Amino acid sequence: MQTKGLLGELIQSLCSLPGIGQKSAQRMAFHLLQRDRQSALNLSQKLAQAVENIGYCQQCRTLTEHEVCHICQDDSRNADVLCIVETPADAWVIDKASAFKGRYFILHGRLSPLDGIGPDELKIDILETRLKSGNIKEVILATNSTVEGEATAHFIAELAQKYAIPATRIAHGVPMGGELEYIDSGTLMHAFDGRRKIL
Amino acid sequence: MQTKGLLGELIQSLCSLPGIGQKSAQRMAFHLLQRDRQSALNLSQKLAQAVENIGYCQQCRTLTEHEVCHICQDDSRNADVLCIVETPADAWVIDKASAFKGRYFILHGRLSPLDGIGPDELKIDILETRLKSGNIKEVILATNSTVEGEATAHFIAELAQKYAIPATRIAHGVPMGGELEYIDSGTLMHAFDGRRKIL
Repeated sequence: MQTKGLLGELIQSLCSLPGIGQKSAQRMAFHLLQRDRQSALNLSQKLAQAVENIGYCQQCRTLTEHEVCHICQDDSRNADVLCIVETPADAWVIDKASAFKGRYFILHGRLSPLDGIGPDELKIDILETRLKSGNIKEVILATNSTVEGEATAHFIAELAQKYAIPATRIAHGVPMGGELEYIDSGTLMHAFDGRRKIL
Repeated sequence: MQTKGLLGELIQSLCSLPGIGQKSAQRMAFHLLQRDRQSALNLSQKLAQAVENIGYCQQCRTLTEHEVCHICQDDSRNADVLCIVETPADAWVIDKASAFKGRYFILHGRLSPLDGIGPDELKIDILETRLKSGNIKEVILATNSTVEGEATAHFIAELAQKYAIPATRIAHGVPMGGELEYIDSGTLMHAFDGRRKIL
């Protein structure tokens, strides 16, 4: 109806959300305005607050509204194990799912010389300061299993070696509940390479 | 990572959007904060503005930020044909797709005695004032083809008859490009009922 007007502008703005096209945006706009104006107001406030206040943690570089995030502040966590991930979303998923109770370091990317992303862009210097401090006993490399992710893991493992810190890589293999018949050959190769003795 | 904190609150707020679950909300929050803070701010503003300013058009009851919407104000449109729909979204879709250049009336629902929705809730009195005015030459009933939508269409057709205004119902049948093999029997029945002479 009004492709122009405030309603049209709201629909356009909703389209900027990832994975949301014109139709979904229309549905959202009508839903919010007809049935849930309180949620719309609430979302509006949270978006503004988040953009204004959320920055990077000084220690691990995750997204947080504090100078140092609550994980880095949490003394009950294991301060001498450091898990290296590519994005804050990776750290979020690991923290929700697993029993990992150490600390994180977020690279915000991976080494990719062709795109001009080197150690400086990933703030490896901040990471190196932490490795140098002597408080870290293990570095767990949880970058993605792409070519660039593997190269990044290798690069950081060598850095850790310089300070005599053991570096480990998370296991890659058949996912839980996965059926061998449907697993790709790359994953299968990893699963055989990474086999462990059970008896 | 932070299930608490501002990031967690933003993710919860995004979950209030229709069709968005926890995972999509996470993806949206990280995307907006890491790559598109400008869009996040923009969306925040549009949501607040829309909630504050968008109300119902006095004449057709669609969503608009003006007292009378731009369709009701548009003198180039046919003021004597009135299309009756259930929701503003229906009017929006018709207006974008079709060659209909008349005006609308939005019921914001359908007659449903079991849910306590009668003529008063649908503001049939406002519609009746327009029919009574003598300016309307045709009423097109574009309510949904559910039992309640059909009953609503019938009710309004009788109202129009009272003022000697012809009421028409939009055609129901096989959709364009639809293959007969996959069409449900209700639609097929309508398609045969509504058949037209071509020679």
